[in-house]
Amino acid sequence: MSEHSKELSAYMQTLGRQARLAATAMAAAPTLAKNQALLALARRLREAGPELQDANQRDLQAGRAAGLDAPMLDRLSLSDKVLATVAEGCEQLAAMPDPIGEITGVKRRPTGISVGQMRVPLGVFGMIYESRPNVTIEAASLAIKSGNACILRGGSEAIHSNLALARLVGDALEEAGLPRAAVQLINTTDRAAVGQLIAMPEFVDVIIPRGGKGLIERISREARVPVIKHLDGNCHSYVDAEVDLALALKVVDNAKTQKYSPCNATESLLVHAARAADFLPEIGALFALKGVEMRACPRALALLGPLPGAKLAAATEEDWSTEYLAPIISIKVVDSLDEAIAHINRYGSHHTDAILTTNHPNAMRFLREVDSASVMVNASTRFADGFEYGLGAEIGISTDKFHARGPVGLEGLTSMKWVVLGQGEIRQ
Amino acid sequence: MSEHSKELSAYMQTLGRQARLAATAMAAAPTLAKNQALLALARRLREAGPELQDANQRDLQAGRAAGLDAPMLDRLSLSDKVLATVAEGCEQLAAMPDPIGEITGVKRRPTGISVGQMRVPLGVFGMIYESRPNVTIEAASLAIKSGNACILRGGSEAIHSNLALARLVGDALEEAGLPRAAVQLINTTDRAAVGQLIAMPEFVDVIIPRGGKGLIERISREARVPVIKHLDGNCHSYVDAEVDLALALKVVDNAKTQKYSPCNATESLLVHAARAADFLPEIGALFALKGVEMRACPRALALLGPLPGAKLAAATEEDWSTEYLAPIISIKVVDSLDEAIAHINRYGSHHTDAILTTNHPNAMRFLREVDSASVMVNASTRFADGFEYGLGAEIGISTDKFHARGPVGLEGLTSMKWVVLGQGEIRQ
Repeated sequence: MSEHSKELSAYMQTLGRQARLAATAMAAAPTLAKNQALLALARRLREAGPELQDANQRDLQAGRAAGLDAPMLDRLSLSDKVLATVAEGCEQLAAMPDPIGEITGVKRRPTGISVGQMRVPLGVFGMIYESRPNVTIEAASLAIKSGNACILRGGSEAIHSNLALARLVGDALEEAGLPRAAVQLINTTDRAAVGQLIAMPEFVDVIIPRGGKGLIERISREARVPVIKHLDGNCHSYVDAEVDLALALKVVDNAKTQKYSPCNATESLLVHAARAADFLPEIGALFALKGVEMRACPRALALLGPLPGAKLAAATEEDWSTEYLAPIISIKVVDSLDEAIAHINRYGSHHTDAILTTNHPNAMRFLREVDSASVMVNASTRFADGFEYGLGAEIGISTDKFHARGPVGLEGLTSMKWVVLGQGEIRQ
Repeated sequence: MSEHSKELSAYMQTLGRQARLAATAMAAAPTLAKNQALLALARRLREAGPELQDANQRDLQAGRAAGLDAPMLDRLSLSDKVLATVAEGCEQLAAMPDPIGEITGVKRRPTGISVGQMRVPLGVFGMIYESRPNVTIEAASLAIKSGNACILRGGSEAIHSNLALARLVGDALEEAGLPRAAVQLINTTDRAAVGQLIAMPEFVDVIIPRGGKGLIERISREARVPVIKHLDGNCHSYVDAEVDLALALKVVDNAKTQKYSPCNATESLLVHAARAADFLPEIGALFALKGVEMRACPRALALLGPLPGAKLAAATEEDWSTEYLAPIISIKVVDSLDEAIAHINRYGSHHTDAILTTNHPNAMRFLREVDSASVMVNASTRFADGFEYGLGAEIGISTDKFHARGPVGLEGLTSMKWVVLGQGEIRQ
């Protein structure tokens, strides 16, 4: 092992040990202290002076010198508006009920003991993310409220901004009498630090990666602790045979075109054959107007063909499983609800899928049988989001089935332990 | 790849594909059909004729020839009593509420959509276990009730019994109109099959290993899907300064000596210094009477020393983290509740720990701050068990924090997906 790797390893072990210690204190921290830390952090973010702006300018200058494009630079920038938004997020979290300590389902057993469950923090989570420095505050505030400690690894292009933000978090924790080490930011851009972070089961209980699919797949493969991960969002909207066509038109348009880049945007449209001739020309005209390319099955193509100015192509097998994140949609005519459900379960990514229908049994079958993290009736797939679901904040979206599915808020950072209350009972 | 490995690989892929298909049918199966299958299975187990007994005899003969000891042979045997017990388990599961389809926490959001969660099966679980063939029925019946499919890999010494039991399960499923492939037993004793089972994320969603620690550690290390696992059970009973000594004596005695081999037996006794002189000689006399060896800290040794016939030894550092599963207990005098909690969190295995106290704040602090799957007040650690907790049945005990902690019943084989009910709402 080189001198440098020895140093890095010692540094990561120190972070891990400190996080584990801080986690014990955070798990037992009073609700009031956690809320005070969140409000102090909000205040410090709003009042943040030249130190934070200088740090952010260093990242922006380095970014410009490295040739980052305008959207990337925009995401790097800690404008007053961005800071106000994250500060507001902290205040909202402070106002939410404390998830920790909740005791549920206590029932008396025939032996005399009472058995229930208590919600407790997971312990220490590691978070790996790219570019936007506001994620540092989102992760820190969720850790504080949920009574966890965290070790953060932001994008290298935001390192100075992240370090300055982490100092504000530490000051806020200290002000509330909580350990600074509850939120630690890895202070090096060395990539080997990620490899260490995901392989310290003695110090880190779960890893939450946010970023490109390649990064997430690599981390999932190599991690020695559980990973809450988000892979594809190949979302479907299915227009059933019995349907309010005007409603379906409005919702499918929104699901596809309100924004093209989010993971919950609809990428594939299924239409029941009984309504294809009514629905497809109308939605097709809307898509054509907005420049959305349509990759369609032969039957859909025949109905869309006469549209002037439409970008049309024949869908290939690959299209059915593709997440475009772009103004492109795949379109298929199906003969039954069964075919729609089977198609979604086969080609979808188990993220978010919606049915547009007025038929109650069909709505219930879709909800039950589509195996996705979010299933919807008569609503835009774009609603699949922690804020829209009322979670207050979102640490990520899970495409796994284990532990947490879909948008992950405070509860995803907790688990339930068993509580037994007795009066001297013994096992016979 | 040899001809044999190719064959095995093709066989495992076939099991996987069939399980995935069956899982879809099981997820949508009516409660009535699942309960019918369980009752049919109970009936077939009670009526099981010579075919099952012949299969069991083949395993017993092979076991005797291989020199298995009497307890091992006893665990292999499918006596009428064992069959009646597992049949009763199936009937109890049939009588329990169906966990699948439960919808909870539906709340209207300001946008107009209603958001809640629906309980759904995990999909396919793989179970790897040793010797006792009745586990085949326990796993099969939990899979049926929870709407999952499973692939079972029993011990090689029970292969004929397990295959005969799996046929009864298949017949019961068929009788209820459910797919036989919902429960499949690997029909080879080839060890390579385990390696394949734990590395098919496309077909298997979670692995549940039951057996020795070495097996479980290896599977956890090599699995490419989540593992619900049970490692050590180094359980503590802590006698607080304010305590009903007679109650503490009864409970600690039970926790240690009612049975020595279960994972929830107490392995370490902590006593507050204020009561050590009262409590230790009494419990020590009981342990001495039952032949329980005491490995004690110097202060405890001084108080236990005068006991006639006691097996006493000085505890080493290693003793504090040892799960004996034997008539041995480690004993330590502590000066405070804080010291007790810190000791348990440091040396324990996060399985089950109990406080004996009459002080309410101390009881609440112990419940909150001891980081174990089960935390108890004034009850024997031996209660940490799915049946005792009212889960109806237990697929295993988890020492992890992620997904499921402690005894895992039907709910541990499910997860919650999000349900959104709209009336044409769109994202602004």
